[in-house]
Amino acid sequence: MSDFVRVVEVGPRDGLQNEHALVPAATKIALIDRLSACGFQVVEATSFVSPKWVPQLADAEDVLAGIQPREGVAYPVLVPNAKGLERALAAGVRHIAVFTAASDAFNLKNTNIDVNGSLERLTPVVEQARAAGVSVRGYVSTVLGCPYQGHVPLGDVVRVADALHAMGCEEISLGDTIGVGTPAKAREMLLACAQAVPMAQLAVHFHDTYGQALANVLACLEAGVRVVDSAVGGLGGCPYAKGASGNLATEDLLYMLEGLGLRTGIDLQAVTDTAVWISGELGRKPASKLATVALANA
Amino acid sequence: MSDFVRVVEVGPRDGLQNEHALVPAATKIALIDRLSACGFQVVEATSFVSPKWVPQLADAEDVLAGIQPREGVAYPVLVPNAKGLERALAAGVRHIAVFTAASDAFNLKNTNIDVNGSLERLTPVVEQARAAGVSVRGYVSTVLGCPYQGHVPLGDVVRVADALHAMGCEEISLGDTIGVGTPAKAREMLLACAQAVPMAQLAVHFHDTYGQALANVLACLEAGVRVVDSAVGGLGGCPYAKGASGNLATEDLLYMLEGLGLRTGIDLQAVTDTAVWISGELGRKPASKLATVALANA
Repeated sequence: MSDFVRVVEVGPRDGLQNEHALVPAATKIALIDRLSACGFQVVEATSFVSPKWVPQLADAEDVLAGIQPREGVAYPVLVPNAKGLERALAAGVRHIAVFTAASDAFNLKNTNIDVNGSLERLTPVVEQARAAGVSVRGYVSTVLGCPYQGHVPLGDVVRVADALHAMGCEEISLGDTIGVGTPAKAREMLLACAQAVPMAQLAVHFHDTYGQALANVLACLEAGVRVVDSAVGGLGGCPYAKGASGNLATEDLLYMLEGLGLRTGIDLQAVTDTAVWISGELGRKPASKLATVALANA
Repeated sequence: MSDFVRVVEVGPRDGLQNEHALVPAATKIALIDRLSACGFQVVEATSFVSPKWVPQLADAEDVLAGIQPREGVAYPVLVPNAKGLERALAAGVRHIAVFTAASDAFNLKNTNIDVNGSLERLTPVVEQARAAGVSVRGYVSTVLGCPYQGHVPLGDVVRVADALHAMGCEEISLGDTIGVGTPAKAREMLLACAQAVPMAQLAVHFHDTYGQALANVLACLEAGVRVVDSAVGGLGGCPYAKGASGNLATEDLLYMLEGLGLRTGIDLQAVTDTAVWISGELGRKPASKLATVALANA
């Protein structure tokens, strides 16, 4: 099995969209540029979701225009629909991500449409993006539980992952949106999806609501996954659990990966420094252990 | 492999001894009584280390006299030497724990004696305790790294674990004192020790300095360990890393164990409530994810 793990940095998008503070575009640009200097191959930059729903990322065009793209780094943006794709293409984006959930209840609540409706709506978006030479990642939310319907059958997760893959998504990121998963269930879910989509095209995406994210990653690495999403400083929160942590913190993940002898090409110290810096910009304490220790000893 | 995991609650001792706040004996007594009502088989109660070194636990006799012992719960106390054993026996203690480290540098710095000297000093203490019908647990510190010497050879860890076992310790707890371990190294260390001491007599004890504790436990469970130390609320800190987290939080551990389908006999909700309560008594935020969410939603 490969000893290289691709860590997909989602802090500027999935992290910041769930932070209370409204962050100036200049800070977002500085964050993305700092992250691309750390050695990530992928830094998810922003979102073309309607500013009505995600006001934190209403400045997507400004952010994309402001960053200094680095050779070898992809800067995907989140795109919810045809309108979002139009904005993304106009901004010159080369990588997008689309999203749906494995749970009808979640999709209905968030996008007013069930899973099947959501997949139908995404199909032409993915097609059009691919026709324009744009690569597409697909996110599946609520893979280990849903805030509205609770249990999510494994078969539903596999069906959605498979549909996104068949539609043309080159990578499928399996997201435990509310962080309820534990290692054996995470591994079982991953292995079930790998029956439908090649393991090399699967990614795992854990939120740390109940402190399980890193253990879940370990179980999934053992099962063969080699793409892991995380956010510098553990940015973000969870709209479904007041007071909860956000994404798995990149620096705590990198510490584990290094200890396991897995390569990432990413500079752990630079990421930790960036976590300390962005937490200061947000006026909050870092959510990661590494940045907490670094800050106390600064 | 057994699906029962014995969780050894060390909050009142290993947690409180590293908290800045001096906690009144009445609060310690209430904490221990609340914990024994949660279903733990073992609640490490206090320490007979000299009050000169650990002023936080100078009230050991008062605490032991004040608790309401519950049938089926053991309340071990930490004992450093013959003098400590004398105090423990006078207090009617039935379970003690002795400690040393796998690293000479750590032992020299903390007890002014090297590993061999420390083992020699403990031998008559363990003998005398066992002769009095008292059960003995042995702690090995610095099993995955030392704040003074850095790397700790695996052979040194195994030798010390083996010596404590041969001396009469019924259980050996392997402690990553500074929390530097990662899963593969933790598992390798455990398996090496299991060559010398039966796995059923080994426990793992992780500190969460770098966020690795739960992932390390997972790796060790997969390797067969069935005794895990943790502290309610993630009590404690680390004298070797300013700003660092303390012990692995019991409630985050229990959440994982339940998700893995392992039994503990412990009431997770009651532990989380206790974590919220003791954090309030200490005037600090809970260090665990579960208690943080519970507090925000209280």
